[in-house]
Amino acid sequence: MSQNLVVIGTGLIGSSLAKAAKATGAFDTVWAINRSAETCEQVKALGVADQAVTYEQLPQVIDQLGEDDIVVVAVPVSIYESIFFQLKPLLPEGVVLTDVGSSKVSVVEAAKSVWGASPAFFVPGHPIAGSEKKSVTAVNPDLFKSRRCILTPLPETGLNATSLISSFWESIGANVDIMDMTHHDEVLAATSHLPHVLAYALVDALCTLDQKTEVFRYAAGGFRDFTRIAESDPLMWRDILLSNRKAILKQLDNFESHLSELRAAIENSDAECISSILERAQSARKLFSETQEKS
Amino acid sequence: MSQNLVVIGTGLIGSSLAKAAKATGAFDTVWAINRSAETCEQVKALGVADQAVTYEQLPQVIDQLGEDDIVVVAVPVSIYESIFFQLKPLLPEGVVLTDVGSSKVSVVEAAKSVWGASPAFFVPGHPIAGSEKKSVTAVNPDLFKSRRCILTPLPETGLNATSLISSFWESIGANVDIMDMTHHDEVLAATSHLPHVLAYALVDALCTLDQKTEVFRYAAGGFRDFTRIAESDPLMWRDILLSNRKAILKQLDNFESHLSELRAAIENSDAECISSILERAQSARKLFSETQEKS
Repeated sequence: MSQNLVVIGTGLIGSSLAKAAKATGAFDTVWAINRSAETCEQVKALGVADQAVTYEQLPQVIDQLGEDDIVVVAVPVSIYESIFFQLKPLLPEGVVLTDVGSSKVSVVEAAKSVWGASPAFFVPGHPIAGSEKKSVTAVNPDLFKSRRCILTPLPETGLNATSLISSFWESIGANVDIMDMTHHDEVLAATSHLPHVLAYALVDALCTLDQKTEVFRYAAGGFRDFTRIAESDPLMWRDILLSNRKAILKQLDNFESHLSELRAAIENSDAECISSILERAQSARKLFSETQEKS
Repeated sequence: MSQNLVVIGTGLIGSSLAKAAKATGAFDTVWAINRSAETCEQVKALGVADQAVTYEQLPQVIDQLGEDDIVVVAVPVSIYESIFFQLKPLLPEGVVLTDVGSSKVSVVEAAKSVWGASPAFFVPGHPIAGSEKKSVTAVNPDLFKSRRCILTPLPETGLNATSLISSFWESIGANVDIMDMTHHDEVLAATSHLPHVLAYALVDALCTLDQKTEVFRYAAGGFRDFTRIAESDPLMWRDILLSNRKAILKQLDNFESHLSELRAAIENSDAECISSILERAQSARKLFSETQEKS
């Protein structure tokens, strides 16, 4: 049975996960590893973890771990490789490693470059939850309740390791799905990464207009919801866009061809074609709403 | 002083406006004109208006009106011309006519084509409020509270008429702004029409993917908010896209050039360029949030 949970990185996901795990009472100690002493103080003040220490103390913490203890890496995807590199000489036998990165192929590549192959004790994972808010101050232990968490184990991943991580996510309320990592990256490119690209591009387009002030002044609820995700952390999203660029570009191609079709219909005042696109999209979106309500 | 308010069309905007006006107690009678007897029943059941009648009875209703009574046209923009055509021989002297259409140049053109010039008694207007919901069942008398309503009077519009309509909107809680109609259409193209085009195109792009079911299954909160407006009424939006096509195409050009820039940065793995776009957009979006909170 797991006794320790170590969460490396206490952004929204890391801190919410640590606090949710702490609330289950299943671990003797939940550890949070942070960049600064200041964040450690916040972590303690917000009751996020039992112990909060900085990266300098990572070796001592990892050294205490044993069979079935869990280490979760919850940092921006661009620094997985350096974290794996630090962990490699430290991890005791039996410890299970997982992550929460938004793109999975790139994280597995980082693991392969450090260990030669993706290690049996490493279970790539991605909880489908988040917010435009970041940092430990946004901590929300209910963030994963009834949300999906996708695990993308490889053939070389240990079955026990996958099962342990799967149970962990279920213990904090998530519904776990197993998926091929390439497929994960394609689905997430469509459903999460592409909308972020569009929202950032739209706000960028509007804020360079001469009428910028008025545009924002007369923006209503539709605009507010549509562009909320453009408030997401630029560095985190820069990393996601870079780490999943192929799948994102493919989805962008598909989007651009559909946008061109709608644009042409508007240019040609083709009422019938506009209707058929809008109706098709509306039905699909309604179906999505209904699915969400049921799940 | 106005004694009668006649609202033609009881979709979300028309019915909310009628119910809000009824609540002020300022009118002897609030009339709702509907397409069907069934809708008249709903209007009565929901307390939207004092009297609900079908279009067949429009002549009798209009005939009773007098000095400073108000007629609000709240129908899809494509049928303004036919409504104006019906109203032309009916409207008694002194009655003030206004509308709620999302594009203003096209509505004024419809008025010009019926009356030869935009009549002094017609005040073009557009409340910046709405929702993806439609029809009288979504009625919300608070819909306009603290929201902006833009009036776009022409030089030939009567000052008293503009002042009467302005006071009317203020009486139901809106903040009134006066704007040139072409400028209104440009601002709304950027802030409302373009986001709808993008949301419809995105959902259309995703629902034609092979992985469609999974894409919708793994969509999280960001996607839900981003695409909510794609559930808006396709016919209403077809009309808006057609009626404001020039301004929309101009905003689409601007968007597409910004999207190309971001796309190129992703293709070239240009971390610095991605960061600078994302940071610029995030700051602008944060500024917008702050402005919204203050207003």
